[in-house]
Amino acid sequence: MAELLKGKPVVEAMARDLELRVARLHEHNVNPTLAIVRVGQRPDDLSYERTALKRAESLGIDVRSMVLNETACTEELATVIDAINKEVTIHGCLLFRPLPPSIDENAICDLLSPEKDIDGITRASLASIFVGQGAGFAPATAAAVMRMLDYYEVPLHGAHVVVVGRSLVIGKPVAQLLLARHATVTMCHSRTADLAELMRGADIVVCATGRARGYGKECFSAGQVVIDVGINFDGEGNMCGDVDFATVEPVVGAITPVPGGIGSVTTSTTMAHVVEAAERAIGLS
Amino acid sequence: MAELLKGKPVVEAMARDLELRVARLHEHNVNPTLAIVRVGQRPDDLSYERTALKRAESLGIDVRSMVLNETACTEELATVIDAINKEVTIHGCLLFRPLPPSIDENAICDLLSPEKDIDGITRASLASIFVGQGAGFAPATAAAVMRMLDYYEVPLHGAHVVVVGRSLVIGKPVAQLLLARHATVTMCHSRTADLAELMRGADIVVCATGRARGYGKECFSAGQVVIDVGINFDGEGNMCGDVDFATVEPVVGAITPVPGGIGSVTTSTTMAHVVEAAERAIGLS
Repeated sequence: MAELLKGKPVVEAMARDLELRVARLHEHNVNPTLAIVRVGQRPDDLSYERTALKRAESLGIDVRSMVLNETACTEELATVIDAINKEVTIHGCLLFRPLPPSIDENAICDLLSPEKDIDGITRASLASIFVGQGAGFAPATAAAVMRMLDYYEVPLHGAHVVVVGRSLVIGKPVAQLLLARHATVTMCHSRTADLAELMRGADIVVCATGRARGYGKECFSAGQVVIDVGINFDGEGNMCGDVDFATVEPVVGAITPVPGGIGSVTTSTTMAHVVEAAERAIGLS
Repeated sequence: MAELLKGKPVVEAMARDLELRVARLHEHNVNPTLAIVRVGQRPDDLSYERTALKRAESLGIDVRSMVLNETACTEELATVIDAINKEVTIHGCLLFRPLPPSIDENAICDLLSPEKDIDGITRASLASIFVGQGAGFAPATAAAVMRMLDYYEVPLHGAHVVVVGRSLVIGKPVAQLLLARHATVTMCHSRTADLAELMRGADIVVCATGRARGYGKECFSAGQVVIDVGINFDGEGNMCGDVDFATVEPVVGAITPVPGGIGSVTTSTTMAHVVEAAERAIGLS
């Protein structure tokens, strides 16, 4: 029986902290404000938008939703990002991706001011993570993994972490964040030979590949901490992680469930970044 | 008896390629030109400058040395970098570091145009390596490791590489370059537990920590490829690598010597970057 690393207590602890900080911002006549930019009506985006709106409201964070038609071109979206950059009452911007193929996603991402890039989509933010200093924020999911590990006091210094997946939204940045905390980090991916053996040898495993229940008990060993970043749906429409929870949970030391794990902490981390951006904007942070 | 991965044949192969490319640039009335910027008279800098001048001359690459007094301030150096950025006949800039403590090194590095940043010192170049696209070049030493591995046809796809050291000039960027070639990469450092065991399990080990003969045979196993990036001097003033060559060479499958290994390839890689920057400047690359 593994310890269940649930997101809920992490979210609650973050809420207690954020409520105080939002109140302090209000005393300075600042309403921390998130711009949500959505192109089209993708169900994933709509679902995350609803969750974000609810969480923002509960924390006293204002949200302005900016919705473009799915036929929007790069120039139209660029105009919206430019307006967000210039609007001093907006502190952070969450842009839903992937964008439609008609839009140059790289060009759009780099238009956003790093100071408002609360989800680490600009090259400037990613450079900050790689270099270990600078403005900008880590992608919210990568930062959420760190918050989860810290809340449950998982030792990172000198620990061996295997990160499976090398995307720019989670695998690559979380590897750098872990390295900065003095973990030894192995970056694995679809071309990795002997993946199961490498995973079994780690103290901590972070799975972030989007393979529904793709990693079974053969990949894990006793005492490990397993962070499951995947949010997938199986053939019957049930939400599940990258890890085959039913067979892995009895083997390992601790594991995040899906749902109820990293996903909920990610939403709170996005909000924490908005609050921090607002604090930085008035020199409070 | 390990295969000796000497730098000389790599340097010679690169020279044959670069001579053709320099000749083609000359046909376009372009003299590929490197600016070397040195502050003070550090023996390391002077030594590398002599080597670079010699290599540049042999390849038909022009060099302009710009030397500042060791008491120079950030503004003075900034003026030099600015002039290099604006001078269209200069294609690349090699700035010797570390700079004296009186100079804000980070600020200086970020002033350089990424297009002329042939040693990967700007945040923009480092972001390109992390993101996997964009202008700029990898730090010459990191790129030299890749050239060495490619020249000797060391398979990278799916191979497990342990990188020891996490500096921005070698460990971190080489890990990203290896990852982009589909290697599985473990980033180790001074806080890594069971370092010797991790090193022994790799297919390829890259040592880049600056610990003279710091890694003995207990860290290696049969058949491994060992890339020794260290350039150190022992108590008697003899140049040596991070690896204890005498005891390790009999154990492993292949190893780069020091001197005569990565160091010489690094100088050629710097020159290759200058040529490529010149080619890019006129749309030849």
